[in-house]
Amino acid sequence: MRAKVIIIGAGFGGLNAAKALAKASVDVLLIDRHNYHTFSPLLYQVATCGLEPEEIAYPVRGIFRHQSNLTFLMADVISIDPRTKALRVLFNEQERTEHYDYLLVAAGSTTNFFNTPGLDEYAFELKTLNDAVLIRNHILTLFEYAGWTDDEQRKALKTLVVVGGGPTGLETAGALFELYQHVLSKEYPYLRDQQPHVILVEATDRLLAPYPESLQEAALKQLESLGVEVILNNPVQKVTADAVYLKDGQVIPSATLIWSAGVKASPLAQMLGVELQRGGRVPVLPTLQVSGLDDVYVVGDMAYLLDADNQPYPQMIPVAQQQGKLAAKNIIRRLRSEDEAVFKFVDRGIMATIGRSRAVAYIYNRIPLKGYIAWVAWLVLHLISLMGFRNRVNVLVNWIWNYFTYDRSIRVIFKHGASSNRHEAG
Amino acid sequence: MRAKVIIIGAGFGGLNAAKALAKASVDVLLIDRHNYHTFSPLLYQVATCGLEPEEIAYPVRGIFRHQSNLTFLMADVISIDPRTKALRVLFNEQERTEHYDYLLVAAGSTTNFFNTPGLDEYAFELKTLNDAVLIRNHILTLFEYAGWTDDEQRKALKTLVVVGGGPTGLETAGALFELYQHVLSKEYPYLRDQQPHVILVEATDRLLAPYPESLQEAALKQLESLGVEVILNNPVQKVTADAVYLKDGQVIPSATLIWSAGVKASPLAQMLGVELQRGGRVPVLPTLQVSGLDDVYVVGDMAYLLDADNQPYPQMIPVAQQQGKLAAKNIIRRLRSEDEAVFKFVDRGIMATIGRSRAVAYIYNRIPLKGYIAWVAWLVLHLISLMGFRNRVNVLVNWIWNYFTYDRSIRVIFKHGASSNRHEAG
Repeated sequence: MRAKVIIIGAGFGGLNAAKALAKASVDVLLIDRHNYHTFSPLLYQVATCGLEPEEIAYPVRGIFRHQSNLTFLMADVISIDPRTKALRVLFNEQERTEHYDYLLVAAGSTTNFFNTPGLDEYAFELKTLNDAVLIRNHILTLFEYAGWTDDEQRKALKTLVVVGGGPTGLETAGALFELYQHVLSKEYPYLRDQQPHVILVEATDRLLAPYPESLQEAALKQLESLGVEVILNNPVQKVTADAVYLKDGQVIPSATLIWSAGVKASPLAQMLGVELQRGGRVPVLPTLQVSGLDDVYVVGDMAYLLDADNQPYPQMIPVAQQQGKLAAKNIIRRLRSEDEAVFKFVDRGIMATIGRSRAVAYIYNRIPLKGYIAWVAWLVLHLISLMGFRNRVNVLVNWIWNYFTYDRSIRVIFKHGASSNRHEAG
Repeated sequence: MRAKVIIIGAGFGGLNAAKALAKASVDVLLIDRHNYHTFSPLLYQVATCGLEPEEIAYPVRGIFRHQSNLTFLMADVISIDPRTKALRVLFNEQERTEHYDYLLVAAGSTTNFFNTPGLDEYAFELKTLNDAVLIRNHILTLFEYAGWTDDEQRKALKTLVVVGGGPTGLETAGALFELYQHVLSKEYPYLRDQQPHVILVEATDRLLAPYPESLQEAALKQLESLGVEVILNNPVQKVTADAVYLKDGQVIPSATLIWSAGVKASPLAQMLGVELQRGGRVPVLPTLQVSGLDDVYVVGDMAYLLDADNQPYPQMIPVAQQQGKLAAKNIIRRLRSEDEAVFKFVDRGIMATIGRSRAVAYIYNRIPLKGYIAWVAWLVLHLISLMGFRNRVNVLVNWIWNYFTYDRSIRVIFKHGASSNRHEAG
């Protein structure tokens, strides 16, 4: 009988693992709670009315239509029992058990609010397609609502706060500013001739921590030249419905806080019954096996593994992709009774975009790029990484459109709900 | 002081009225509960995974960015008082009063279930963007769910029933069949080698009632050659979660009924305090004024006006567009103390598409077209009617993609909800 491999998660780690098993003589069951893969680096463009949500989602069944050894199951995983090598899955109020010979867990991460008061209730996050649409709807609704309030209240409605000096924070702050400046300030009468007010808050003294200092400073300059206010060295202490409280005592009237200042491993990590590391991550051996659980591999944001400098590998897409591939190959090696390989990260560099014609990149961690050339590199890389020819063409059309017209056409407040005539929704 | 015109509804009637007032020395307040205009003829393509919802929606503020005499207000209208010429509007739990000199009501129509048992609870409709996404999510979820059930239960999951022999019914049935045949049957293992089962049910003895007989027969033939089962002369009597009951006693096991067999005027019609006509429509004079309410105009699906043959004008987009324009012009004429004009419908014909390369059209109600040429005419007309260059290009890209690949890429089950970390959604 062929070995059965279950992969949990159709993110970057899970997809790469599944593809690496395409020619192996195993049966693969890929499980995800969504029927699509999300191209998460472009979520901020959905949140800021630049792209449609479906343009950065790709149906999993479509990806694997021609991989005959793979079955897809849309379900929630509700428990894992490594002892009996089984897991319980749930869909549409029905449960069942699936058995595995090898388990590959790639369920990613969720937002980490670090128990900051109010964040749970009032902060927006940017981890899923739904998060992105919530932000889009929220901001557009606020601006509609501004017509119903007085000047004092409007201040909080018009001030948008982004927390976190990583790539997502910079990208979101830049895109929000441009949305405000080029579109919203032209279409809302009570905003005409008003300066956009977007604030980026970072707890430490620098943006883009892993970048060389020259690029950190370039990023800061580019953000400020765009018009974004940057506050460094000032952690968020508390947030309410209409204000953000910083450590130094500053109170920012704002009805919008987008939190991109940290993640923690998916709660699935807790189902494995092993002691977790910082951020809820699962400690793995260099082969990506969970120590003590030989047949369970964990990859990507969920995995905790130290690099040559004794630092945990960062929670970023290339690490997840390469770990997914390696874990799959290690399973194949074991089936052939070959030695397993250990993880070595091939780092092709990092990049972040800040707005039109503004970006920084650090290619192969040797070549620093900034400004227009870094921005073009970012565009090209993200376009070719996007899955599906149709998605690529549509995204390209929207980018060209947005670039030349300064427009953001996707500014529709669209909330899925019950149909007009009934309350039960399919 | 300039006269104030309030327009309720940013559908085809309201938009045309608002544009016709662009150069008039009036202040226009355009009210809609959504911040976007929906290009409703393509809703069925959103429902069947061919287009993204945002591609057929266009933000109202964008449309009128350069019309300086117009203000847009996103709000629900909760009451109209023609005596004091005021209406109450609601947004985000706040209410206020708006006063008008002239009121133009163009709030369209909603689905009419004609009190058929079960429809309220189980039928899907196709009037709004949300309706379309509900259908998409429902069908894709059913097909995922089919993997969890036995053969007997699957029958109901795999049989899709469309009710109504008008253009929307034909278009939806054809598109569902193609989605099933070219995409779903290839991606769901338990469907492989199974024939799609799409049934179109019509209460009368013919499809496309207003068309000449030769085209009615052509439409029937095209549907059947595609593979859609057509049941004529058989009204739906009842529907449950997993079956559709027809008048002749037939019971169709099906978990999906899409109802496009009738509309009724928006409930706003009841706020005017006049006696309503069949389908809840507001009787209007040939000038489109409500008789007895000189300053109130009603246009489009809500208006009831008899044509030269003593038949009420049909509830279709060209009528709404031309009535919207005329009502606006009549307001201008009154301000200039000129005589008002009466409504004369310029009928450019009707068309319906049935699937790739299949359609019927009746140009100027004289020239019958069918098959490929009618289909191309349909594509071109809908593409140029679509608002916004970006939307047109994106729709065109998707159409070309779908045509050559037989693919439907937008098959993502995407339900807006609370964010992963909290329950309150902005």
